[in-house]
Amino acid sequence: MTQDTPYLLTPGPLTTSLRVKRAMLRDWGSRDPDFEALTADVCARLKVIAGAGDGYACVPIQGSGTFAVEAMLVTLVPRKGHVLVLSNGAYGRRIAEIATRVGVQVSTLENADDTPNDVAALRKRLAEDDSITHVAAVHCETTSGLLNPVEEIAAICCETGRALLLDSMSGFGALPLDAEGQGITAIAASANKCLQGVPGVGYVIVDRGALQAAQGNAPTLVLDLEAQQRQFEKDGQWRFTPPTHVMAALSEALMELEEEGGPAARLARYRANYDLLSQGMADLGFRPALDPAVQAPIIVSFHEPQAAWFDFAEFYERLKAQGFAIYAGKMRAQDTFRIGVIGAIDPGIIGMFLDVTRNVIEKMQENG
Amino acid sequence: MTQDTPYLLTPGPLTTSLRVKRAMLRDWGSRDPDFEALTADVCARLKVIAGAGDGYACVPIQGSGTFAVEAMLVTLVPRKGHVLVLSNGAYGRRIAEIATRVGVQVSTLENADDTPNDVAALRKRLAEDDSITHVAAVHCETTSGLLNPVEEIAAICCETGRALLLDSMSGFGALPLDAEGQGITAIAASANKCLQGVPGVGYVIVDRGALQAAQGNAPTLVLDLEAQQRQFEKDGQWRFTPPTHVMAALSEALMELEEEGGPAARLARYRANYDLLSQGMADLGFRPALDPAVQAPIIVSFHEPQAAWFDFAEFYERLKAQGFAIYAGKMRAQDTFRIGVIGAIDPGIIGMFLDVTRNVIEKMQENG
Ligand SMILES: Cc1ncc(COP(=O)(O)O)c(C=O)c1O
Ligand SMILES: Cc1ncc(COP(=O)(O)O)c(C=O)c1O
Repeated sequence: MTQDTPYLLTPGPLTTSLRVKRAMLRDWGSRDPDFEALTADVCARLKVIAGAGDGYACVPIQGSGTFAVEAMLVTLVPRKGHVLVLSNGAYGRRIAEIATRVGVQVSTLENADDTPNDVAALRKRLAEDDSITHVAAVHCETTSGLLNPVEEIAAICCETGRALLLDSMSGFGALPLDAEGQGITAIAASANKCLQGVPGVGYVIVDRGALQAAQGNAPTLVLDLEAQQRQFEKDGQWRFTPPTHVMAALSEALMELEEEGGPAARLARYRANYDLLSQGMADLGFRPALDPAVQAPIIVSFHEPQAAWFDFAEFYERLKAQGFAIYAGKMRAQDTFRIGVIGAIDPGIIGMFLDVTRNVIEKMQENG
Repeated sequence: MTQDTPYLLTPGPLTTSLRVKRAMLRDWGSRDPDFEALTADVCARLKVIAGAGDGYACVPIQGSGTFAVEAMLVTLVPRKGHVLVLSNGAYGRRIAEIATRVGVQVSTLENADDTPNDVAALRKRLAEDDSITHVAAVHCETTSGLLNPVEEIAAICCETGRALLLDSMSGFGALPLDAEGQGITAIAASANKCLQGVPGVGYVIVDRGALQAAQGNAPTLVLDLEAQQRQFEKDGQWRFTPPTHVMAALSEALMELEEEGGPAARLARYRANYDLLSQGMADLGFRPALDPAVQAPIIVSFHEPQAAWFDFAEFYERLKAQGFAIYAGKMRAQDTFRIGVIGAIDPGIIGMFLDVTRNVIEKMQENG
């Protein structure tokens, strides 16, 4: 099969392998033992990737990644809880918005979009405010592409007895994670980022004790992870129709990940993609929005050129016509666009992208 | 491609056509104009099927059908609202459970699982209790397979100025619907029942006035249909990553439905499946749980034979080994099992199923 659709250099949905997509050519009975077994296998593999042992459950949940994030918050934070959100981008702000909507007390420790979460400020804040029960953080802030200091945050939460809820959406499957070693209470992520599955399902990997303590807490039926986990323990069944084809694709994607050599090997490929991209874009005159020291090899924000010839919509359409879909920017203080280096792509494809980009900007500069 | 997996004679996920599954062999950029156009086209087609004109919006939502039902309730019923649930099966009871969870006042008008909603009791109840703002009903109660009297319920709601919220999950795309003509406020359904798409997305077709009035109502970010519809109107975008492959399959499934001749032609095929199934099962000695007068041609409940040779688990496994997955029963007062007649199946396949069943029960009777 030829690549008749553009490569998706985005934060997801991504370009997936044909093998992963072909896994969707079968209809599964959602209550059939074969599908129960597939679900259990997927959950077991996800736990290994997260560094989560017997003390953790993996609860899959239909919908996009944000559904998993909301399910994590609404299930685990009691109505009288107080969550401190570490925010330096749109996804941190989204967590705060969810907490506000579902009606728990929320405070925010805000940093600029290009600056990692401030761990000293976190320590200070937790010391000052006893009412804070939970800390919520974003692992790779996809808004900019920045890597937050999760290990330090987790250590502070452990020391001070706060539960850490981590949105690890855009890095899960590539960035190292050690839920158990770092004492992280819960991690939310989805199928369609570094796992290279298709969108439609997320999951929360959660400390069993914290989950059990949350029984009856959630003012929602569908997003109640504790009730879902009890059902799995009872009979291995999803409470509501699972996205069977999406789960079959995720199962295949997890086998591909294993064959590639696991998260470390995948991260190495993404890093090779990133290295080539950042060098190539620099050669073309584009400036990255982040200090490379805080950049994760997931998605890269570039400043829009301040030049008459540049127009993002035109740039996007020209690149797409030549086989590459890039992504709009999302940073607050600066005009940026984003290029993802994750998915079923390798440096060969990034090289092609750089050739195409050179060509496109030459055309745009001639015209504009 | 041969049928290497069982036919799914269930209430969904169903057997879908290879053409529908093949539509998932492409990766779509979720923010790309092509995918925006696909979403808009799908929503427009769904509105036509529902008999909904310009006064209605169609809001798709990731997740299973229950996510769409909860989104409909939590978005549209104000915190001070009072919803009367017409219940004669598990899905009516589920609506009541959702309403209780999300914290609105809820009352129930209950009938036995084999008896249609009592419209005289509804009329009386609405006359007696002014505080009731919404009525919630289930179109085809998949628990038994029973068709509820939606037209009469809708007429009573219109007369008495109550908003009707309809769970039309298992019949949407086959059973006739006239949202506008019947003044139905909202209809929730999903991709993977009579539309013959794959699971992973639902939708709510909703009166625009009622939706606009619900702004800021929902104590949830992800299930807030009003916020999603505002986003669509602003820029055509989903707020959160859509299940792109599932949507592409739904788009293909809607084209298939049109080519088949629309809901009326589909219903005729299902009725032919049902007629053959019920005659054939009667010949084999199985008794249906419902009076045929209240049976929808969607899924049929049969009494379990009260005989030593019969064991559902064994019956299921033997049928599955010969290519057919049936479904466990869900009725409260009686032991039943269910056989669905929807999906990409026709009387030829039902005939094969009857042959296989005859064979299986002969084997079971010999052994048992
Ligand atoms: C860090 C992070 N959190 C949450 C999300 C939301 O995921 P979704 O769009 O699948 O709801 C994303 C999506 O890019 C993300 O990168
Ligand atoms: C009438 C009815 N309502 C709701 C549902 C729930 O749908 P899901 O399992 O997709 O959440 C079903 C599923 O069979 C149904 O038949």
